[in-house]
Amino acid sequence: MKAIVKQTAAPGAGYVDVDDPKPGPKDVVIAVKSAAICGTDIHIYDWTRYAQDRIKPPMIFGHEVCGDVVELGSQVDTLQKGDRVAVETHIPCGVCFQCQTGNQHICEKMAIVGVHTDGVFAEYAKIPAVCCWKLPGDFDPDLGAILEPIGVAVHGILEGEVNGMSVAVFGCGPIGLFGIGAINALGANKIFALEPNRARLEMARKFAPNAVLINPADENAVQIIKESTGGRGVDVVVELSGSPAAVKMAFQVLRLGGRVSLVGLPSQPITLDAPTDIIYKEAKVFGTTGRRMWDTWWQVQGLLDSGKFDPMPAVTHRMGLAEIGKGIDLAKTGQAGKVLLYP
Amino acid sequence: MKAIVKQTAAPGAGYVDVDDPKPGPKDVVIAVKSAAICGTDIHIYDWTRYAQDRIKPPMIFGHEVCGDVVELGSQVDTLQKGDRVAVETHIPCGVCFQCQTGNQHICEKMAIVGVHTDGVFAEYAKIPAVCCWKLPGDFDPDLGAILEPIGVAVHGILEGEVNGMSVAVFGCGPIGLFGIGAINALGANKIFALEPNRARLEMARKFAPNAVLINPADENAVQIIKESTGGRGVDVVVELSGSPAAVKMAFQVLRLGGRVSLVGLPSQPITLDAPTDIIYKEAKVFGTTGRRMWDTWWQVQGLLDSGKFDPMPAVTHRMGLAEIGKGIDLAKTGQAGKVLLYP
Amino acid sequence: MKAIVKQTAAPGAGYVDVDDPKPGPKDVVIAVKSAAICGTDIHIYDWTRYAQDRIKPPMIFGHEVCGDVVELGSQVDTLQKGDRVAVETHIPCGVCFQCQTGNQHICEKMAIVGVHTDGVFAEYAKIPAVCCWKLPGDFDPDLGAILEPIGVAVHGILEGEVNGMSVAVFGCGPIGLFGIGAINALGANKIFALEPNRARLEMARKFAPNAVLINPADENAVQIIKESTGGRGVDVVVELSGSPAAVKMAFQVLRLGGRVSLVGLPSQPITLDAPTDIIYKEAKVFGTTGRRMWDTWWQVQGLLDSGKFDPMPAVTHRMGLAEIGKGIDLAKTGQAGKVLLYP
Amino acid sequence: MKAIVKQTAAPGAGYVDVDDPKPGPKDVVIAVKSAAICGTDIHIYDWTRYAQDRIKPPMIFGHEVCGDVVELGSQVDTLQKGDRVAVETHIPCGVCFQCQTGNQHICEKMAIVGVHTDGVFAEYAKIPAVCCWKLPGDFDPDLGAILEPIGVAVHGILEGEVNGMSVAVFGCGPIGLFGIGAINALGANKIFALEPNRARLEMARKFAPNAVLINPADENAVQIIKESTGGRGVDVVVELSGSPAAVKMAFQVLRLGGRVSLVGLPSQPITLDAPTDIIYKEAKVFGTTGRRMWDTWWQVQGLLDSGKFDPMPAVTHRMGLAEIGKGIDLAKTGQAGKVLLYP
Repeated sequence: MKAIVKQTAAPGAGYVDVDDPKPGPKDVVIAVKSAAICGTDIHIYDWTRYAQDRIKPPMIFGHEVCGDVVELGSQVDTLQKGDRVAVETHIPCGVCFQCQTGNQHICEKMAIVGVHTDGVFAEYAKIPAVCCWKLPGDFDPDLGAILEPIGVAVHGILEGEVNGMSVAVFGCGPIGLFGIGAINALGANKIFALEPNRARLEMARKFAPNAVLINPADENAVQIIKESTGGRGVDVVVELSGSPAAVKMAFQVLRLGGRVSLVGLPSQPITLDAPTDIIYKEAKVFGTTGRRMWDTWWQVQGLLDSGKFDPMPAVTHRMGLAEIGKGIDLAKTGQAGKVLLYP
Repeated sequence: MKAIVKQTAAPGAGYVDVDDPKPGPKDVVIAVKSAAICGTDIHIYDWTRYAQDRIKPPMIFGHEVCGDVVELGSQVDTLQKGDRVAVETHIPCGVCFQCQTGNQHICEKMAIVGVHTDGVFAEYAKIPAVCCWKLPGDFDPDLGAILEPIGVAVHGILEGEVNGMSVAVFGCGPIGLFGIGAINALGANKIFALEPNRARLEMARKFAPNAVLINPADENAVQIIKESTGGRGVDVVVELSGSPAAVKMAFQVLRLGGRVSLVGLPSQPITLDAPTDIIYKEAKVFGTTGRRMWDTWWQVQGLLDSGKFDPMPAVTHRMGLAEIGKGIDLAKTGQAGKVLLYP
Repeated sequence: MKAIVKQTAAPGAGYVDVDDPKPGPKDVVIAVKSAAICGTDIHIYDWTRYAQDRIKPPMIFGHEVCGDVVELGSQVDTLQKGDRVAVETHIPCGVCFQCQTGNQHICEKMAIVGVHTDGVFAEYAKIPAVCCWKLPGDFDPDLGAILEPIGVAVHGILEGEVNGMSVAVFGCGPIGLFGIGAINALGANKIFALEPNRARLEMARKFAPNAVLINPADENAVQIIKESTGGRGVDVVVELSGSPAAVKMAFQVLRLGGRVSLVGLPSQPITLDAPTDIIYKEAKVFGTTGRRMWDTWWQVQGLLDSGKFDPMPAVTHRMGLAEIGKGIDLAKTGQAGKVLLYP
Repeated sequence: MKAIVKQTAAPGAGYVDVDDPKPGPKDVVIAVKSAAICGTDIHIYDWTRYAQDRIKPPMIFGHEVCGDVVELGSQVDTLQKGDRVAVETHIPCGVCFQCQTGNQHICEKMAIVGVHTDGVFAEYAKIPAVCCWKLPGDFDPDLGAILEPIGVAVHGILEGEVNGMSVAVFGCGPIGLFGIGAINALGANKIFALEPNRARLEMARKFAPNAVLINPADENAVQIIKESTGGRGVDVVVELSGSPAAVKMAFQVLRLGGRVSLVGLPSQPITLDAPTDIIYKEAKVFGTTGRRMWDTWWQVQGLLDSGKFDPMPAVTHRMGLAEIGKGIDLAKTGQAGKVLLYP
């Protein structure tokens, strides 16, 4: 089959022929219908430090995907050939303390599809059955491919409450846009969207028509938010940008006793003035990663069913697998929302 | 001044002249701008068992109100003459365990305006300053008069979460309508409204256009709800009707592990099959009464500010104080939503 | 092998020869080291209504057990021959909404070992691997056999908090005794133990030396508890007796805003005065059943490791499997704490 | 009267004659029975940056105190002359959002006794009635004087749960010792106490006999804690030292999904690796300050009533007010636990 392969420990990737995958006893093989480029894929393509620490070439990467089951491992009895599935990319061990207590998403021995195993930028992909989220047979594959990143946003949001609250979202990349749409549907009272990239900021309007859009490069975000909240600041910040400056600002716009959810991954250390930022303020800081299995997936499905949340406007580009380089470039430079790839 | 007075231990009430109220050191006197009839007022007017156990005639009743401060007690420094206020009708003692731990609304020595003290169906009313919720000077007095019952609904709803969840509301009287509107604004995924009175049920549509309206007198509510929720039942029930049959049904439509908030006051004992209704189901049952001081008031204000919740369509009748008998009758027979009275 | 078999739809059971169990692909077979009699076993033996609704003779009953793995199903890779295990008796389906969201213990398609499948009152038992809790090789089998009922108590207690709180426990059967010991270790401030059987009440002292022991048949429990809590009542009630009168009393001794956990299974309907018992009181009522998989098991292990909780004094009798009739009789008449059976 | 006065903007303080305090209408005057030296007092005495930013000499400092009411302001009706009281040192405004929603301890306009108003290192002190916690008439004044710092520890601990959990406490100064004793009484499963000062570390043994004592200057704290917790790390860290290195280590010893409560006030910025320390770990970080009014005070009283927690061994020195310099020196150099002063 054709696949995108990280061939060597260097930037780039090849679109090459490889053997079809064979399922292990607990795996299925899916025919990939639609896949999406994630920030992690950019790291792998660009061979950043993050990738160098984790990736062992040669390997197929990519992990956001929707496909149809075409082959079943010998022990798989929860799926059938022909089932359409989306994929949870965190592979839990199933037996550690975290897996045994409802926290498979922070498994002590976590592996990740397309990082620690061959991924989904290919015609076919081998996926553990335990990572398959079954969809209706006619489910839009493009929507299926982005359920995983929607889940990242929703998990970060719903580790606390947002109903009736004021919420600031830092970062309007694809996950930020999903988050803004979800927060709007989940009954937030007031939404602030912050993003220095004008095009992305403008896209936020499609996800929450009444959101206050703030470009922190041009505007005094702290002042705007404070003035719009009676001087108190917001009840909740959802930090999706991974910018250390944004993390710092998150605490400045937070009200006393408010909640900050950190989801975006800063590549530099963050520096905080603990008394002012956290202690005197009695801030609650929640780190979140990935998605709960399967609580978050059910929440995402509920949001989609509610008719109040449409994530598709975040998808801005679609192309063939072979055009991976172009897709990576669009995503990296902020000219795109979500980029989908097709085998 | 003119006032509605419960004159004797018998049904009815008089519209009569009484002395103007004088504030104690911690009270204010307000000029009543708008007042609303509550179910408690019907009990007092009709001299039911509930009233006989609590009311000592002669006394002025009524407690849902908006007015302007016209006189200040000697120790009051948190309000000024001319301030527009709504009134929290539960008067906390301020020193008991509950008052000291953020639960003034279930004070161990609770008194209630218009039940244990003279009320607001009058030109002027004496109100403890600690019970005044300050409003902007141009706040609509009719909206101000119904903040208290809106709070009853919101408090019941927000003792748990509703965002992204399926919710059934039992009872579409005024508090039920407020509740349905609030649940819709707070991001519920799916709403079921249950009410045997057709006119009231129809009004629910104004508060949640996508709600599933169910007349349990004509339809199989349990079946409808189960079928609409994949056979599982709803995540949350908010019971506002006070009907023992509704309480029973609440547990039947609840999913495993779901939450029932009991707000409506049954006048008969409720009988439950504890293993099936609660224990094997791991139901969470929350009794709620009144409103949190002042958490719920802030939540109500946030809802109103959000632009997603308009309670005014529940107000169906407006009349002078002297027409109390007619207003009581309209409310009692279910022909009205909320009835407002003006001095 | 020898086993206790419910042979016909009538009271009693036989100690007879049956075929050794064969594991299915996801099962193990264990050699039973120690088993314990539960209230459910009394229902089955006595052929009560509960049993008639669930049990299809002939079948082996019994479900509280510790044993050693002697045979592995073809797909089992989480256990090895020789492993000592205790058994979670609720068999989750693994794919329903509850199983997918951390609530396997209230699976929508729950089956129970020794009720819906052959049980453990036998030399060998077939157990789904997913229900095995691995123990150290030298773990006391008698302690292993009672981890499951200890879990019932701990799960009921820890659905809310008890640390620093006043707690009343209704019922001092084996689960009540485990509960009292756990509550004592978990940092409750004041413990009240209620039980009409003098012998059982007296045993509570071994589990919480400072507990206030109350015989509700002889003493005014409500008055004693109110006087010992400044007139307010307790923060938490854990109802383990299943007596409708105890459920009623639970709400009378509860403080405003307190929590009642219902664990014991009343065989009659319970009747509550909703306004007084739940609504005005803002009671929180939590039904709990079984044990969380595996949160509760970890909590039980933590309690045992802490050195603050010793459940063994609840074990009062030990006998051979063949003496099941005598064991049932001892347990039923309240002359025993926990009765253990050995093949 | 005699009082300790910060006379000028420079290190030191005077023991001098000043006018007796007069109560405002909402204040009482107490005769000081026992007062305790806090870290804040050291800042004021030493005229550190913290003090320079807040203190306007001349003023009396000190705020941890127990005394008897000797004079009542004209509007005070919740206390009587002769009442023994401890003092909540955070003076809430009573009308801001935080004060209105059960969070007076993080009032938006907070003032602090002995920082923003004259304090308690004197024969008499003026205290807002709203800050008085009434004690029995024969309550030990020394215990009364330390309820406030005990509350700091208990508030930090109980913003989450500790029952049945493993907990590491960083810092064994007086608040650390109180915290260790409270955690022990509240049912933690395993306690680790960390402190570089040998004398203080040794004192921890009196508060939790089974605690693992770790001197992070000499021992590999991370390794010890990991090995004692099955490699996972602790469920909870309570950071009371204010050391940036300790904050960093707190995240290293925390298990996936665990909770860090930050209470101690670092004087330098803290630097965190957000992905590793918080996000991938899904850490929950709670800042806490002061004590809840009055939830924490009730919790402290419950702990004392339980008989499981005795804070008095933390009091190591007692002296007259005039010896303030010596007391400050003992506290500052870590030779003392809590130092009490008497007028």
